[in-house]
Amino acid sequence: MAKRIAAFGEVMMRLEVPGFETLAQANRLRYSFSGTGVNVASALARFGHKGYLVTTLPRTPLGDAALAHLRKLGISDDFVRRDGKYIGMYFLENGFGARPGRVTYADRLGSSFNTAPEDGYPFADIAGQLDYVHFCGIALAMNDTVRRQMKAFAREAKRQGVKVVFDCNYRASLWGADGYAAAKPHYEEMLELADIVMMNEKDAIHVLGYRTEQTDRSGQLMELIPQVAARYGVAASAGTHRAVNGDNTHSLTGYLYKNGEFVFSRPLRFAVHDRIGAGDAYASGIIHGDMTGYEAGRTVNFAAAAALLAHTVTGDTPLAAEADVLQAMEGLMLDVER
Amino acid sequence: MAKRIAAFGEVMMRLEVPGFETLAQANRLRYSFSGTGVNVASALARFGHKGYLVTTLPRTPLGDAALAHLRKLGISDDFVRRDGKYIGMYFLENGFGARPGRVTYADRLGSSFNTAPEDGYPFADIAGQLDYVHFCGIALAMNDTVRRQMKAFAREAKRQGVKVVFDCNYRASLWGADGYAAAKPHYEEMLELADIVMMNEKDAIHVLGYRTEQTDRSGQLMELIPQVAARYGVAASAGTHRAVNGDNTHSLTGYLYKNGEFVFSRPLRFAVHDRIGAGDAYASGIIHGDMTGYEAGRTVNFAAAAALLAHTVTGDTPLAAEADVLQAMEGLMLDVER
Amino acid sequence: MAKRIAAFGEVMMRLEVPGFETLAQANRLRYSFSGTGVNVASALARFGHKGYLVTTLPRTPLGDAALAHLRKLGISDDFVRRDGKYIGMYFLENGFGARPGRVTYADRLGSSFNTAPEDGYPFADIAGQLDYVHFCGIALAMNDTVRRQMKAFAREAKRQGVKVVFDCNYRASLWGADGYAAAKPHYEEMLELADIVMMNEKDAIHVLGYRTEQTDRSGQLMELIPQVAARYGVAASAGTHRAVNGDNTHSLTGYLYKNGEFVFSRPLRFAVHDRIGAGDAYASGIIHGDMTGYEAGRTVNFAAAAALLAHTVTGDTPLAAEADVLQAMEGLMLDVER
Amino acid sequence: MAKRIAAFGEVMMRLEVPGFETLAQANRLRYSFSGTGVNVASALARFGHKGYLVTTLPRTPLGDAALAHLRKLGISDDFVRRDGKYIGMYFLENGFGARPGRVTYADRLGSSFNTAPEDGYPFADIAGQLDYVHFCGIALAMNDTVRRQMKAFAREAKRQGVKVVFDCNYRASLWGADGYAAAKPHYEEMLELADIVMMNEKDAIHVLGYRTEQTDRSGQLMELIPQVAARYGVAASAGTHRAVNGDNTHSLTGYLYKNGEFVFSRPLRFAVHDRIGAGDAYASGIIHGDMTGYEAGRTVNFAAAAALLAHTVTGDTPLAAEADVLQAMEGLMLDVER
Amino acid sequence: MAKRIAAFGEVMMRLEVPGFETLAQANRLRYSFSGTGVNVASALARFGHKGYLVTTLPRTPLGDAALAHLRKLGISDDFVRRDGKYIGMYFLENGFGARPGRVTYADRLGSSFNTAPEDGYPFADIAGQLDYVHFCGIALAMNDTVRRQMKAFAREAKRQGVKVVFDCNYRASLWGADGYAAAKPHYEEMLELADIVMMNEKDAIHVLGYRTEQTDRSGQLMELIPQVAARYGVAASAGTHRAVNGDNTHSLTGYLYKNGEFVFSRPLRFAVHDRIGAGDAYASGIIHGDMTGYEAGRTVNFAAAAALLAHTVTGDTPLAAEADVLQAMEGLMLDVER
Amino acid sequence: MAKRIAAFGEVMMRLEVPGFETLAQANRLRYSFSGTGVNVASALARFGHKGYLVTTLPRTPLGDAALAHLRKLGISDDFVRRDGKYIGMYFLENGFGARPGRVTYADRLGSSFNTAPEDGYPFADIAGQLDYVHFCGIALAMNDTVRRQMKAFAREAKRQGVKVVFDCNYRASLWGADGYAAAKPHYEEMLELADIVMMNEKDAIHVLGYRTEQTDRSGQLMELIPQVAARYGVAASAGTHRAVNGDNTHSLTGYLYKNGEFVFSRPLRFAVHDRIGAGDAYASGIIHGDMTGYEAGRTVNFAAAAALLAHTVTGDTPLAAEADVLQAMEGLMLDVER
Repeated sequence: MAKRIAAFGEVMMRLEVPGFETLAQANRLRYSFSGTGVNVASALARFGHKGYLVTTLPRTPLGDAALAHLRKLGISDDFVRRDGKYIGMYFLENGFGARPGRVTYADRLGSSFNTAPEDGYPFADIAGQLDYVHFCGIALAMNDTVRRQMKAFAREAKRQGVKVVFDCNYRASLWGADGYAAAKPHYEEMLELADIVMMNEKDAIHVLGYRTEQTDRSGQLMELIPQVAARYGVAASAGTHRAVNGDNTHSLTGYLYKNGEFVFSRPLRFAVHDRIGAGDAYASGIIHGDMTGYEAGRTVNFAAAAALLAHTVTGDTPLAAEADVLQAMEGLMLDVER
Repeated sequence: MAKRIAAFGEVMMRLEVPGFETLAQANRLRYSFSGTGVNVASALARFGHKGYLVTTLPRTPLGDAALAHLRKLGISDDFVRRDGKYIGMYFLENGFGARPGRVTYADRLGSSFNTAPEDGYPFADIAGQLDYVHFCGIALAMNDTVRRQMKAFAREAKRQGVKVVFDCNYRASLWGADGYAAAKPHYEEMLELADIVMMNEKDAIHVLGYRTEQTDRSGQLMELIPQVAARYGVAASAGTHRAVNGDNTHSLTGYLYKNGEFVFSRPLRFAVHDRIGAGDAYASGIIHGDMTGYEAGRTVNFAAAAALLAHTVTGDTPLAAEADVLQAMEGLMLDVER
Repeated sequence: MAKRIAAFGEVMMRLEVPGFETLAQANRLRYSFSGTGVNVASALARFGHKGYLVTTLPRTPLGDAALAHLRKLGISDDFVRRDGKYIGMYFLENGFGARPGRVTYADRLGSSFNTAPEDGYPFADIAGQLDYVHFCGIALAMNDTVRRQMKAFAREAKRQGVKVVFDCNYRASLWGADGYAAAKPHYEEMLELADIVMMNEKDAIHVLGYRTEQTDRSGQLMELIPQVAARYGVAASAGTHRAVNGDNTHSLTGYLYKNGEFVFSRPLRFAVHDRIGAGDAYASGIIHGDMTGYEAGRTVNFAAAAALLAHTVTGDTPLAAEADVLQAMEGLMLDVER
Repeated sequence: MAKRIAAFGEVMMRLEVPGFETLAQANRLRYSFSGTGVNVASALARFGHKGYLVTTLPRTPLGDAALAHLRKLGISDDFVRRDGKYIGMYFLENGFGARPGRVTYADRLGSSFNTAPEDGYPFADIAGQLDYVHFCGIALAMNDTVRRQMKAFAREAKRQGVKVVFDCNYRASLWGADGYAAAKPHYEEMLELADIVMMNEKDAIHVLGYRTEQTDRSGQLMELIPQVAARYGVAASAGTHRAVNGDNTHSLTGYLYKNGEFVFSRPLRFAVHDRIGAGDAYASGIIHGDMTGYEAGRTVNFAAAAALLAHTVTGDTPLAAEADVLQAMEGLMLDVER
Repeated sequence: MAKRIAAFGEVMMRLEVPGFETLAQANRLRYSFSGTGVNVASALARFGHKGYLVTTLPRTPLGDAALAHLRKLGISDDFVRRDGKYIGMYFLENGFGARPGRVTYADRLGSSFNTAPEDGYPFADIAGQLDYVHFCGIALAMNDTVRRQMKAFAREAKRQGVKVVFDCNYRASLWGADGYAAAKPHYEEMLELADIVMMNEKDAIHVLGYRTEQTDRSGQLMELIPQVAARYGVAASAGTHRAVNGDNTHSLTGYLYKNGEFVFSRPLRFAVHDRIGAGDAYASGIIHGDMTGYEAGRTVNFAAAAALLAHTVTGDTPLAAEADVLQAMEGLMLDVER
Repeated sequence: MAKRIAAFGEVMMRLEVPGFETLAQANRLRYSFSGTGVNVASALARFGHKGYLVTTLPRTPLGDAALAHLRKLGISDDFVRRDGKYIGMYFLENGFGARPGRVTYADRLGSSFNTAPEDGYPFADIAGQLDYVHFCGIALAMNDTVRRQMKAFAREAKRQGVKVVFDCNYRASLWGADGYAAAKPHYEEMLELADIVMMNEKDAIHVLGYRTEQTDRSGQLMELIPQVAARYGVAASAGTHRAVNGDNTHSLTGYLYKNGEFVFSRPLRFAVHDRIGAGDAYASGIIHGDMTGYEAGRTVNFAAAAALLAHTVTGDTPLAAEADVLQAMEGLMLDVER
């Protein structure tokens, strides 16, 4: 049964140097439009649901291009406002082996999304047309207006019985000097409103200030996630542990904590073409499992395979259909009981 | 005899859709770095002088790319500060026939140039190494700090006997509601400091508030420019009249007013490949004539030919060497007495 | 007031050699997806209406790409069936001056559109959600099933009060030996169902078999179009006279015949970047005038300006918004009373 | 001593999305022309022989491009007919890691090759100018006319003492519901005419209906190939066992069965750039060994090295000269006794 | 009736900056292989004859690429020697309007063609397989060995009844200080051997030292060409007068002098995409007329139309088939009596 | 403290086939300008020093492009002469796995650098502005004039107390029949003038004629380098041992011999994007260590990390800043005591 989900967040223009040249060497860029909300709404549209984005784009040729790109990705533009002057952007130079990739942001404080008027979105109307809504911690870092919009939308969604998903994603460079201390109360408000939370033990320790005697990540995860879930009333928590290996491959293990139990995906190890957006693919897999009524093991392995596939496609946004993910699960001999 | 000139101004990243697609159709951009100061310093370096840029660029991959690009253009980076976070940008979609091209700016208020500290540049030291310095009215529109920097640099240059060039270039979209009224006092201050001024009758009427009974542009020009020169003590004024013709060609006539006399270039009519930056080529030709001691007729025809050639090259920045311009003058049967 | 329009027709993949090389010289192609229906639905979506396409696309990566492309163009995919195996294609080599461009079709008889089951589309339901529906004579040439689908859809639309637009477009290479004789009865059936017809005197003479003593095209048009309108009960007829001039420009004059009166657009002469799809832009302008209640003169000039702009964009599909067309009308000093 | 070989088969246009984007993401394709016959004739031309293709291409720009491409590959066009309307095509999207590549065929039933008249080729004349002729099982799947052409050509070749090579290549999607049962009699006819057969145990089991108690591939091969060779009178059989490894490498072992003895190549393991056409490179190596009088061990290692190199080049068609293959054999420390 | 023609000359690698950037701006080149001999042999192959090139190419990847390119153009490589180390090259930057294009040659003195041993080519054998042979004055400028090769080949051709075509093409930069004086005796030797000569009055005046009182080009041509033809025993002379017009178009009129009579083509005026190689297209048209038995008026108009079309294709080498030229003649309303 | 270094050597134009096609397959090239001297001067400029190139470039568009490229790389053009006609060039086809890459040189004997007049460079003036000067053995192979220039410059540098670096780089294909015997006396002269020498045991054995009983490379190195250093009075010797592994990775260990002691870098193993120029990066790291006063272990590990990073960037020329190398050292857990 197809569900309806909206993601609230900014559209970013991604400007990538093709191949492995640097910005100083090249003179051509490939561009696309993405963002956590874009990635989640598009991934779930490909899984058969109806994906909306709630955002603001300028009435400029860049805004038109972004909108066309969203529609191409299968996202409904019914809840996209047109207003303001600018669009967020980032430049990407690909790394190779020991040479790291580099991301350079343009000034995004004045973007249409970040300057939208507080009452610009008809959240009650929108929530009335949804089953799920998705928020991301990065947007919390923007400014007070955006924070108030997020919380208002989440409250309204909760009030109308829409499931709230919150991704704890924390980006240090956006929070300034006070960092975690400034962020904590806003994350706590969102956690209290959330049904499904994307996070791992690092978020618990750094953003929420939890402490643990455990020294390995796995032990920390299994100690802290249940505490967080209990305190903030979170029905389901999910996330990944990732590692970059010496041979240019990555490793990833997903977890899902629900009804007091942890389920882990099989550990995956794989070559990487484009790693940005893989976390959003994992989140989308978890949400799809919840939407579709997969049992927990299937959900977490589906999400992990979706994340793996997101590393193999060009661009930030996951492209896999449900069938593609299921086929990858079989290829990886994951648990695919139907 | 080669002279030394510095231009004070912002470096802009130009992101152009190749060919005639729109941003919504394409997914590739070609980028370069330009700006009025870049164009003038580069053009004069190609004419055999030493060209400097006085500006601020961020210590980011974009700033590195801009700096490498400036050096490639033959501009000395001795007076480039590295500071701040962002670089100005604009997107260009080419028009075709009746379909106009479109320029979309990114947010430039937070750029390194526009946020440089007021005392960031050692203007006295820099002026000591120059023969000419170039300023542009566009930079006057940025903010109070930039305006104070411009005036301080111009005053210091004047004090040390450096010739001051001021281009009256006015961009309405940058001045907000008060427009001309807000701009006028700043333009007047710069005019009083300037030896050579790039302008035409429109600047006199709109920015400086002059009035005239003349109805054709030529008559207005010949009435007003002498008044402006007298009032602000401008030694030489120069500029162009341009028109876009129905057959996709442009027409251009240059003027130079000096020692109480007007000299005009032969009218030129020509096909256009990339029109941005042609005004800077004209200014560079006028400055080169002054530096080299060309008599007035040769100067104005040299500048017009330089402007024509700038319409024939890809990108904003003029590429012609002195010999290229002289050769074009011959081809156009302009006045080339040596 | 925004209207709802659906176009019934095939999606074609356009594979174009970039620049002016031939297929034997080059090794790269640029591709997009178009078709008369695509062009009309997209153009009207840009004019502010809701544009649907009624077609069938295969469940293959090519079908997915076509669908994504339609959405990017702003076309609703609500009435797109997924079925069959193939998609129509054509290759385009650009001409230059006296060297003509060349179009090479791939085999389209087995395309998803041309093999869709006769009862595959829920025409009654679709018609219930429309204000206008658009058909093109090219599709009449395909096969009996497609012809029956077209007529069934048109009848159902008429029954429900939906306005029927029929474009007489005739492509000789698709009709085989019997040509006009084979085509005529089908065109007549469609004409009887149509409210608005795109045609000119050539269609009357060749397809419908009309005769005239007039020798110039204009005289023929003014004699025959009223006869056709009267005989088949057509409320409005419109079309263009086009010519290719010796200097690489094209000329175009549009007409609209309605309520017994002819109105002509100002003759336009303009440079051409990509001529395919310009007729669809003209049709879209006529339909928009009808939807919006423009008076006849404004309608025909709007349509002509839309056609002109379609010659200036890359690709088959018109890109101009209503404001772009109105601005071009002003630039062309056409009749723009509001 | 250079030999003369003709391959009978269809030319396919390969349209590949560059890099790792999908058809829905990209808007550019790289194209080339290939096919089993193209690959074999070109590979043997690079090994120093005279390579012909016997096929039919349309008199269209696409047919011209295909023909130019064949000549560029070093294939003689003396036996290429020009007739019909269409050319076969397939689209290729590259996979990455766990994401599989995708091939999408265009409609090829109406291609010039598949609609050539049965008596279109002067097989007796052609055979008179050859030492070897090559056929592929894929062409058997096309239609009755093509099947009759193949068999007539093979019979004529046999009659004139030309060595007949038959590659058992079976493509399930082309044979419809009856599949193996429909194919078997045609394969049997070709086997009876063939001197050299490319196949492995899977062909014996699936196409020819052999049974074996062996469970590993190697055992099956060694049991069944001698039975096939004996039954159909095949002088030499050859083929490969291939595997895709977890680390993105492939493994390949070649075999050659001749005079009652099996010879195997050293197992190779290697990184893959473009896997299509590697089987044709292997077949070409086997044929070259036969043409040149290599002893069996050298032949099978040469063929395996040729196959390996074919995985390292862009496009379907092998590019290695004989010297390149011999050098690779040395680099791989294969058996290179001369 | 198809004829056999060989051209003797060097293959040049053309490295072109795409679009209108300069070498200092761009970082990509498009390359192809051409040369007067290549252009003539390829053009005549497209007109239905058999075209050979007699040249030497190195056994390097560049030589392989050149050879593949020749075959792609339809030229037979039967008479191509493989020897030496280098290939001639030139870089091309496109001009625009008043900005002239620029050609920069690489060092070609050590090229395979220019260092081939004097007795490297089996001229007698080759001539035995030909009906026509083509030489170009540019090759005369290379060195003594090449000059001796040319003359030996021309003598051998003449002896065997092969028609000798000589194009007087003179390139000043290749002849050093003595210029015309050094060249004259070699041109005279070739003229004495030639049946068909491509030249105009400038060659007569500058290279051969003729004088005339006429002041307009046409008068000079009509006075001098008959004198040259008489003195050196030339059966047919042909050439063009060309002009570059102010509006970016070119004008061209062809002439043919034969049997004591001048015939002129209609003057043509046309837009230009790529002018290099157009003279070779004209020569090819003249040769084709001679081969096919066209009467003089048809020949000269065919050649002029072929030259016009050569200005419209990318690259140096003409691409038009005979039918294309005939169609262009009709479009231009030239004299096409058959 | 920033030092001043000049490299004496030729600028080479690198023309690379993008991706993995061959020259015969592709029709596009990417170009840049490099050379040992370019690489060393640029690398040290990025490490914070002032890098000059002493060379000659033609006054052609290619020479202009080379000069612009040098400036873009951060190299000062103060000591670049403009003279002569040609520039050295090489073509690069990338290999893949078992298929080796191929380098094809154009004729460079007539290049501006190789034909510069012996007294063309003001070596005494130049040396007066330097702290270090770099020479490469490849230039020794050119001709007598270049050899005399090198030695004169080195002697002058030594006389003025400038440190002389000599890279023993030997390229067999440039020395002709006599090879090592012809080269030896010139290498010996340079070694006697050098303070820092880049070499390993192979240079000692092959070029200088040393003998050793040791069989492994490491033993040979430790026996011979001290002998060479003693005999020619070399203060510091450095070099690398490299190996290509079966899994497409490379291994590299650097050494530095100074004050009678060997220091080795940690062995590195890494994936390779572009291996050309990595030796120059190592040399630059050694020179930077000497300039900055790093102790030996830090120097050799810095140089090895710089070499590793040079394998990860597109093009010949190292791009890493000092901070990038130090960060890579940390990532590789090399010895980074400060």
